[in-house]
Amino acid sequence: MSKGLPKRSEDYSLWYNELVKRADLAENSAVRGCMVIKPYGFSIWEKMQAELDRMFKKTGHTNAYFPLFIPKSFLSKEASHVEGFAKECAVVTHYRLKTDDSGKGVIVDPEAKLEEELIVRPTSETVIWSTYKNWIQSYRDLPLLINQWANVVRWEMRTRLFLRTAEFLWQEGHTAHATRKEAEEETLQMMNVYADFAERFMAMPVIKGVKTESEKFAGAESTYCIEAMMQDGKALQAGTSHFLGQNFAKAFDVKFATKEGGLDHVWGTSWGVSTRLMGALIMAHSDDKGLVLPPKLAPIQVVIVPIFKSEEELAQIRVKALEIVDQLDEIGISVKFDDRDTYKPGWKFAEYELKGVPLRLGIGPRDLKNNTVEMARRDDFSKTLVNFEEEDLIGKIKETLDEIQSSIYQKAKSFTEEKTTAVDSWEEFVETLNNKGGFVAAHWDGTTETEDKIKEKTKATIRCIPLDQEEEDGVCILTGKPSKGRVLFAKAY
Amino acid sequence: MSKGLPKRSEDYSLWYNELVKRADLAENSAVRGCMVIKPYGFSIWEKMQAELDRMFKKTGHTNAYFPLFIPKSFLSKEASHVEGFAKECAVVTHYRLKTDDSGKGVIVDPEAKLEEELIVRPTSETVIWSTYKNWIQSYRDLPLLINQWANVVRWEMRTRLFLRTAEFLWQEGHTAHATRKEAEEETLQMMNVYADFAERFMAMPVIKGVKTESEKFAGAESTYCIEAMMQDGKALQAGTSHFLGQNFAKAFDVKFATKEGGLDHVWGTSWGVSTRLMGALIMAHSDDKGLVLPPKLAPIQVVIVPIFKSEEELAQIRVKALEIVDQLDEIGISVKFDDRDTYKPGWKFAEYELKGVPLRLGIGPRDLKNNTVEMARRDDFSKTLVNFEEEDLIGKIKETLDEIQSSIYQKAKSFTEEKTTAVDSWEEFVETLNNKGGFVAAHWDGTTETEDKIKEKTKATIRCIPLDQEEEDGVCILTGKPSKGRVLFAKAY
Repeated sequence: MSKGLPKRSEDYSLWYNELVKRADLAENSAVRGCMVIKPYGFSIWEKMQAELDRMFKKTGHTNAYFPLFIPKSFLSKEASHVEGFAKECAVVTHYRLKTDDSGKGVIVDPEAKLEEELIVRPTSETVIWSTYKNWIQSYRDLPLLINQWANVVRWEMRTRLFLRTAEFLWQEGHTAHATRKEAEEETLQMMNVYADFAERFMAMPVIKGVKTESEKFAGAESTYCIEAMMQDGKALQAGTSHFLGQNFAKAFDVKFATKEGGLDHVWGTSWGVSTRLMGALIMAHSDDKGLVLPPKLAPIQVVIVPIFKSEEELAQIRVKALEIVDQLDEIGISVKFDDRDTYKPGWKFAEYELKGVPLRLGIGPRDLKNNTVEMARRDDFSKTLVNFEEEDLIGKIKETLDEIQSSIYQKAKSFTEEKTTAVDSWEEFVETLNNKGGFVAAHWDGTTETEDKIKEKTKATIRCIPLDQEEEDGVCILTGKPSKGRVLFAKAY
Repeated sequence: MSKGLPKRSEDYSLWYNELVKRADLAENSAVRGCMVIKPYGFSIWEKMQAELDRMFKKTGHTNAYFPLFIPKSFLSKEASHVEGFAKECAVVTHYRLKTDDSGKGVIVDPEAKLEEELIVRPTSETVIWSTYKNWIQSYRDLPLLINQWANVVRWEMRTRLFLRTAEFLWQEGHTAHATRKEAEEETLQMMNVYADFAERFMAMPVIKGVKTESEKFAGAESTYCIEAMMQDGKALQAGTSHFLGQNFAKAFDVKFATKEGGLDHVWGTSWGVSTRLMGALIMAHSDDKGLVLPPKLAPIQVVIVPIFKSEEELAQIRVKALEIVDQLDEIGISVKFDDRDTYKPGWKFAEYELKGVPLRLGIGPRDLKNNTVEMARRDDFSKTLVNFEEEDLIGKIKETLDEIQSSIYQKAKSFTEEKTTAVDSWEEFVETLNNKGGFVAAHWDGTTETEDKIKEKTKATIRCIPLDQEEEDGVCILTGKPSKGRVLFAKAY
C-alpha cells in the first residue's frame, strides 16, 4: 500500500470509492457503469449468497432460471411496470456482427435485425409470469415458491461501485398463491428473512417498514423494505419485498381453478436483494483503516502473522502456527497463515486491517518462549496476550469472534438510534437533516403531493412507514394537516 | 402423466425432448432459443455446480465476476477470436424505450443510441484480458487463477434444450501464468478435473483428447476436451480446456516483469463446462421409463412410497417411514416421503421413475407385519425385500446407492467401448458410421483438407486425437497418405 485511505470525516464518498478499490472488492470495467467484482469482494458475496440461499430453502423456496432477454412487448403488459423500467432498459436489436470494409474491424450486420427487440431483464416479473401461466392451472399447483440468482441490467446514468451499477447481481423471488392473505404473509415473511440476515449476518440493524405510494415497486400493490443507516447519516434501502396483488396475474392472464370450483386470478409476490448489500456492509462498519467485516461473512476470519528475523525463527513459529491452523480448520474457522518473507509484519498488519480480517494473531520468538500469542481485534484494535499453555486458545478465538460479531452490531445499533431524531416542526426538520442527518421521524399528511414537496425542498425522501409505528396524533410538518403517526425521512443512497 | 414417453428406439430425438419437458427439467421460453430451467432441472445443475466449484477451489482457483457486456471493438482485437464469434453475437444498440404513439405500447427510443454497440458476452476472454492488463505487472502477480459462473449468449439458429441454446449457464476459468509450461500444465489439469467430475459424479465415461486445428477454440493454440458417447451413437463434447499461448496477452498488451528482470507477455488458459452437461447426463443414462440419475447428482436419492388403503394404515406406515427419513437425513442422504393421498402408489412409482430417483422404498401393511421394506432400484428395476429387524436397512441403502452409482458408470463404460470401432478402410468407415455409429478410430493424414472432405461426405468430425493414442503406422482412410496413429471420428451433438 502506497498511502493511507482518505478519512471518512474529510471525504466520505472518496473514502468509500478508495476503500472498495484498495481492499480488492470491485473496480470499474471498460464498459460504462458495469463493475468487475474482484476475487476478494466476490468471496464475501459468495458467503452472503450461501446464507441467503439456505434461508430461502428453509422457507420452502427452490431455485430455477429464466431467460436474460424479455420481448419488448411483455414490458408494456403491466402499465405501471413499463413506466417504471422502460427508461433504463438495454435493448438488443441485432444478432450478428460482420467484418467492416477494412476487413479488420467489425460492424453490426444491418441484415441481422430482430423482428421484435429484446430488452435485457431489469427484473423478471414479466418473463416469469408469462411462464407461470403455463405452470398454474389449479389450486394444487399453488403455492409456487421460486427464486433465481441472476444478473440484471438497469441503465443508470450515475453509477457507483456496488451501490448503483448498470449491471448487478441479485436474487429475485417470485411466488404465486391462491389467496391474498397467503401472498401478504409471504411478502412479510421474506422481509423478515432479509431483516434477520442483515442483523444476524451483516451485523447491520435495519428498520422494517412499508414504502409510500410514490416509492413502491412499479407494478406492486405495496412494497415492504428494510432500511439501514450508513455512517455518513444517509439511509440505504437494503432489501424489498413486494405484494403484487393480482396485477401480474391479470396482465399475463394467470388463472387457477379454486378448491371451490371457481376460477380466479393468482396472487403474487416478488422480493430481492442485490450486490448493493456489499455497499451497505462496507459503509455500515468500516473505518479509516479499511474494512471492518462481521466474522460471519469474513472470507478469512483469523490471520496469523509470524514476527521473525531469521529462517530459523520462522521455522519455530511455523510449528506452533500450523498447529493453530489445524485446530481452527477442524471447527470450521477460516484461517490464513501468512509466512511470506517478502513483506514485513507491519505491512501485513496494515494489509489485513485494510481487508477487514476480524482477528489477527501475532507470534514472535518471545511469544514462543513465554507460550503466548498476541490476539488483536480488527473492530476496536484491542490486544490481548493469551497464554496457550494455561488458557484454551481455540476457545478464546471462537469466543472473541462471537464477541466481535455482536459488538459490531451493537455499535451500529447505537449509531442508528443516535441518528434517529423525532421532530415536530419544519424548522427542526430542516435543521436536523442539514446538521445531523440520519432518520428523521416526523408527521406527514399522507399525500404524495406533500412528499414530493418535501423532497424538492430538502432532498429527503420517506424511507418507510415503520411497521412498529405507534399511533400518535400529530400534524404534518409541512402542511399542518392531521397525521396519525410518524414516518421516517432521510437523505438516501 | 397422460401416457408413456416415446421410445428411444423409435425416435431418439423426440424421446429426449419429451423427457426434458415431462421430467420438469427445462422448457422453451417465449424468447426464441432461450430456455427456462425448471426447479427440478435446476436442482440437478446446482449439485453439479457445487461439486465443480469445490474442485476448482481445491485446485487453487477463486471466483470473480466480469461484465455481461463487451464493447464491440474488443472482439476484433484477437483475429481468430472475432472470426469465431462475431456471427452469433446479440448486440445492444440502445439503452432506453419510450411510449409509442398509441400511448400504450413501447418503442426503442432512437435518441438513446449507444456510441459504441455492446455485445452480450459469448465468452469472456476479451473483457477479462482487458482487465488482467491492470492486474498483472510482475511475476509476483502470477499465476492468476480465476473462475466465473455466468450466463452467456450465442445466437444459434437451431436450438435444443440444454444441448444448444441461445443463452446458457456455464463456468469459465481464465488463468494467467509466467511460463508456457505452467499454462500448459494448467490446461491439462483442468481437462483432468472435468474428466474426473464426469466419471465420478455424472457416472459418464469420457475420452480425453486434443482437438484438431479446425475444431479448436477461436483464439487458442490448442484445445483439450472430454468427449462422451450418447446412447444413440452420437458423441457429445462435454468440456473444453484451452491453452491460449500468448494470444490474448498480445491482443490486450498484458506484459509482466520477469524474475530475471525482463518483460514478457503472459501465458493464458481458459476452460469451461455448461448446462450442456445436463443434456449429456440425460442422454448418457436415461431409458424409456424416464431419467436415470447417478445418486451423487440426484436431488432426491431415496423416495418412500406408502401403500395404504386407510388413514389408519397410513398412520402406522408413517411412523416407520419418518424413522427412516430421520436416519437418512442424519447421514446426508436426501429422502422424500410421499404420503399424498391424491395419487395412487402406481402413479407415484411411474412419476419417480420418470424423475430418476435412484432408490424407491415401498412400505405396506404386510411389510409392517413382517418387518420388511421393499427396495426398488431405478437403474435396473431390481427389487429386494429387506427385513429391517434382521438387517441394517440404512447401511443397505447407502451401499445400494454406491452400487447404483458404479453400475450406471460401468454400463455406460461398456456401451462406449462397444460403440468404439477401429477401421482401416473407407468402406468400413462409412459402413460403421451409418449402421453402428459411435466412435470410429481411424488413421487420418493430419490435414484440415482431408478432415473437411470426410465431414462433407459423412457428417462425421474428428472428435479428438486421444491423449492415450498409441503410435501405430497406418494410412489415411480417405487419402491413403501415411499416419502415425488413430484419431476418433463420430457424428456429434
